[in-house]
Amino acid sequence: MANRLGEEALDQLFRAARTHNVWLERPVEDDVLREIYDLAKMAPTSANCSPMRVVFVKSPEAKARLLAVVSAGNQDKTRTAPVTAIIAHDRRFYDELPKLFPHTDARAWFVGNQALIDTTAFRNGTLQGAYLMMAARALGLDCGPMSGFDNDKLDRAFFPDGRFASNFLVNLGYGDASKVFPRSPRFAFDEACTIL
Amino acid sequence: MANRLGEEALDQLFRAARTHNVWLERPVEDDVLREIYDLAKMAPTSANCSPMRVVFVKSPEAKARLLAVVSAGNQDKTRTAPVTAIIAHDRRFYDELPKLFPHTDARAWFVGNQALIDTTAFRNGTLQGAYLMMAARALGLDCGPMSGFDNDKLDRAFFPDGRFASNFLVNLGYGDASKVFPRSPRFAFDEACTIL
Repeated sequence: MANRLGEEALDQLFRAARTHNVWLERPVEDDVLREIYDLAKMAPTSANCSPMRVVFVKSPEAKARLLAVVSAGNQDKTRTAPVTAIIAHDRRFYDELPKLFPHTDARAWFVGNQALIDTTAFRNGTLQGAYLMMAARALGLDCGPMSGFDNDKLDRAFFPDGRFASNFLVNLGYGDASKVFPRSPRFAFDEACTIL
Repeated sequence: MANRLGEEALDQLFRAARTHNVWLERPVEDDVLREIYDLAKMAPTSANCSPMRVVFVKSPEAKARLLAVVSAGNQDKTRTAPVTAIIAHDRRFYDELPKLFPHTDARAWFVGNQALIDTTAFRNGTLQGAYLMMAARALGLDCGPMSGFDNDKLDRAFFPDGRFASNFLVNLGYGDASKVFPRSPRFAFDEACTIL
C-alpha cells in the first residue's frame, strides 16, 4: 500500500508550485520532454482513450508561428519560455481504440455519436494536459498554462488537416520564483465541497 | 529550484498507480478528503476561476441515489468504494471572479458569452478533477475514475437547482492491488508528440 508523499514533495507538486511568467535562461532538453510525456501517459483516461496530442514548440521558427495566434498578454512569457506545449486532442481518437482498449469493441461506442466524441476528447485530453503539468512539476520544472490564444487560428497554423484540435498552452521551463504574482485566493473546502 | 522527485514518488503518482475496481475494507476519513481538496485547489486554473465543485458520496443513502444513475458495469465498484467523488462544475463560476481574481474585472470576459462560459467551466473543472486524483495518489489513496453514468439524471438527483453540472466520478479508497486489470498499452512519445 502506498504511503503519503513527504511534505517537500507535496509542496513541490501543489502547495509551493506557482504559475510562472518569467523564465530562467536554462534550456529544457528533449529527453526531459520525453520523460514528462512518459509519466503523463500512464495516468487514467476513459477506456484508455488517450486523446491528447502535444506539440512542443521550441525553435524560433515555430515560436513565431505560435506567437502570431497568442494574445497580447501572453506574448512575452511565451516568447521567452524554453518550450511551449500545445495541448491538443485527436478528434478521431476512437479509431485508435482497437489498439488502446483491445478487449472489447469500444470504437463502436463512439462512431456516429458526435456529441459523445467531442465531450470525451475534450474531457480526457484536458485530464491528460493536467497530468502533463503535474509530471513536469514532479520532474522539477515549472509550468505556465494559458488559455489566451485563438484556437481556430492555431489549429489552421499547426493542424491544417483538421484532425487535431488545440485545447490550451503550457509554457515549460525553470521559472524565476522572484517574479511570480501574489497568490490568488482559493475556495475553502466547505465552499466547494460537500460530504454526503 | 525544485529537484526531480524520487523514483518511488514517480512510481506512486504515475508509473505504478492503477485504476482500481476492488476496494479494501479501509475507510477514508473526512479529514483525508479535506486534505485531498486542499492540495488540489492550489493547482492552476484559467484566471484562477476554480469552477470545480465536489460531492463526496459516503453514506449508504447518498450511495443509493448515486447508484440509481450509474451504468451496470460501474455498480459494484461504486457501491463498495469507501467514497465516490462527483466531480462537477459551477455553471456560474464567473460570478465568483471578483473574489478569486480581484485585480481586474474578469467577470466581464464571460457575461453574455455562453460558449466561452461552457468551455471554460468544463476545461478548468476537468483540470481540477485531474489535480484531485493526483492529490489523492500523493496522499497514498487509489482512484477509480468513471464516465459511465447518466449525467442528466445525476444532475437532477444531486443538483436540482441547475447551477452545477456533473463531469465525471472518481471512486476513492485503498484498492486491492491483486485485482487490477492488466495494463493497457499507451502511445509512445513519437506517436502522440512532436517537437518543433
